[in-house]
Amino acid sequence: MTVRANNIQPCHHCGGIDTHAHVVPENFPAYVGARLPAEWPSMAAAEPCHRHVMISGKVYRTVSDKCWDVAKRLEDLPGMGVGLQVISPMPELLSYWMAPADAQQVLRFLNEQIAAMVAEAGGKLAGLGAVPLQDMDLAIRELEYAVRTLGLKGVEIGSNINGLPIGAPALDPFFEACEALGAAVFVHALRPAGMDRLVGPAALQQVLAYPGDVGLAAASAITGNLLTRRPNLRIAFSHGGGTLASLLPRLQQGWTVFPALKESVAASPVEQARRFFYDTLVFDTPTLRHLVDMFGASQLMVGTDYPFNFHDRMPVERIAVAGFDADTTVALVRRNAECYLGLERTAS
Amino acid sequence: MTVRANNIQPCHHCGGIDTHAHVVPENFPAYVGARLPAEWPSMAAAEPCHRHVMISGKVYRTVSDKCWDVAKRLEDLPGMGVGLQVISPMPELLSYWMAPADAQQVLRFLNEQIAAMVAEAGGKLAGLGAVPLQDMDLAIRELEYAVRTLGLKGVEIGSNINGLPIGAPALDPFFEACEALGAAVFVHALRPAGMDRLVGPAALQQVLAYPGDVGLAAASAITGNLLTRRPNLRIAFSHGGGTLASLLPRLQQGWTVFPALKESVAASPVEQARRFFYDTLVFDTPTLRHLVDMFGASQLMVGTDYPFNFHDRMPVERIAVAGFDADTTVALVRRNAECYLGLERTAS
Repeated sequence: MTVRANNIQPCHHCGGIDTHAHVVPENFPAYVGARLPAEWPSMAAAEPCHRHVMISGKVYRTVSDKCWDVAKRLEDLPGMGVGLQVISPMPELLSYWMAPADAQQVLRFLNEQIAAMVAEAGGKLAGLGAVPLQDMDLAIRELEYAVRTLGLKGVEIGSNINGLPIGAPALDPFFEACEALGAAVFVHALRPAGMDRLVGPAALQQVLAYPGDVGLAAASAITGNLLTRRPNLRIAFSHGGGTLASLLPRLQQGWTVFPALKESVAASPVEQARRFFYDTLVFDTPTLRHLVDMFGASQLMVGTDYPFNFHDRMPVERIAVAGFDADTTVALVRRNAECYLGLERTAS
Repeated sequence: MTVRANNIQPCHHCGGIDTHAHVVPENFPAYVGARLPAEWPSMAAAEPCHRHVMISGKVYRTVSDKCWDVAKRLEDLPGMGVGLQVISPMPELLSYWMAPADAQQVLRFLNEQIAAMVAEAGGKLAGLGAVPLQDMDLAIRELEYAVRTLGLKGVEIGSNINGLPIGAPALDPFFEACEALGAAVFVHALRPAGMDRLVGPAALQQVLAYPGDVGLAAASAITGNLLTRRPNLRIAFSHGGGTLASLLPRLQQGWTVFPALKESVAASPVEQARRFFYDTLVFDTPTLRHLVDMFGASQLMVGTDYPFNFHDRMPVERIAVAGFDADTTVALVRRNAECYLGLERTAS
């Protein structure tokens, strides 16, 4: 199946652009190959309107049919103030830990599913795909297919690739290809560091360790000079950049204090951070205002984590009540996302 | 040597209270025992006015004589706006990774050094000691000695104890003893998680990984219900609580979304966080204001990391120019620290 996604031309009467929403397919295809990988995902029946995502023989998460049902998804968007939603895979499906060719099977299927959902949605959805970053050649080939053939706007990547930080030089060919293709990159928390520092239930992985991994990913992109190497790359970080807002002033100060850091980091950390994009998924008005202070009014975009349990049900309203001026509000609700996604700009 | 520290009665004309400053001794004693531990610290000659801290046969850090020279330290305080400085060991000396009896030798020596420096300083220094938390009985005995015999105001502990989070139930007897003795606890970043997420020079451990470990330590104290168990404990977190300010709104939201979290965390995470103390060591005015928003004007206290290279040279001035009202300024500069340390309150 090859579906070219619709051209997206959002209108400024249509509400906000949600850049952080996820897809799980209703089913995964049968594995094609000699030996089924233990991590090959599958879906199993659960309570009404829900299915279990099975990974390595265990229920990883139980998700609602809004993960794959376009009609149900589109019904929810107006209530959230969202006119266009950008859908990307549930991060645990990124499959970096599988053999490259096996991961590519999973991700090709997901990319085509996402393109089909976008095609079905009549301009209300845009797609970010995924690529097997554990194999640079395969990853770049899949990126080209996802963007050129399927019409996806870019790709979601993990906050680390089997532990490798986003800013590591080894990933440069991937970012070079993204820049050349005009593909937006969305960095999402995945299998985070710091798990042994948690005291409490399993949900703390998402709640506490995810933001830390995103923050370190963004910091590694700064200390690794990603945007110096790839100045036209459009890259966004999930969950408001995670802990980056807390790290950034200390990184800035450290850059002025430690000669080794001044020497290796090519541009001011604060200036670099203000060229990344971030979603607004922080659930708190003072924190949202602080992110605008730290990262700039031109860099924040709506994000929700829809349709998972832990999603923001009032993302646009939160921005509307935060006390920003009208131009900042439009920027956060829609305009910055248009820029990030490379869409045609609407009037504002 | 046993020195009873002076009673501290800071006067409100004397400037701020710096709660985060460190000590390294000019020399360590010879090891008493059969087999010298590899990690036994020693000092070696370096450039003028400096010495190398040697750990496991390598230079861990080169430090200035202000680490041990009380007269030189006191000369620097007025220029920083500091009237009373609270000194604690360089965290890498906490020695949790050594055999308990060996660690106790190091820490007993440090505790007595700190008490001697406090005694020499004529009321301008107060001390926090250290205890071998890898052995609960030894730790509590050393705590009692440090507080009752040496007159220290409490102890510094690591953001993790050989990987064990601060909020882990196993540490409860220590916190029970601190509460009973009225000992203040200062949680400082140490051997942090996330090291494999860094791209760049070794200084990034301090710059980026330290705040993440402190943030997770504070979060573990919340999810582990530390202040529900020990309601009279006075506990502070270094580096402005590290990444906690970024984590807290998500933890608060997660607590309302995940039943397992609601069930295990006894009180609102935000309410719990607003009972911890934090230093102001964030090098940035908007971030300082954000911490006051998040944690409350009664919970922030000056901290500098003096006399290390990466210390804040204008900690009181930063507060003065941040635009707080007069009462908040006094609270941050001095009053909150008096409360945290259990000092007699000055007029404000």
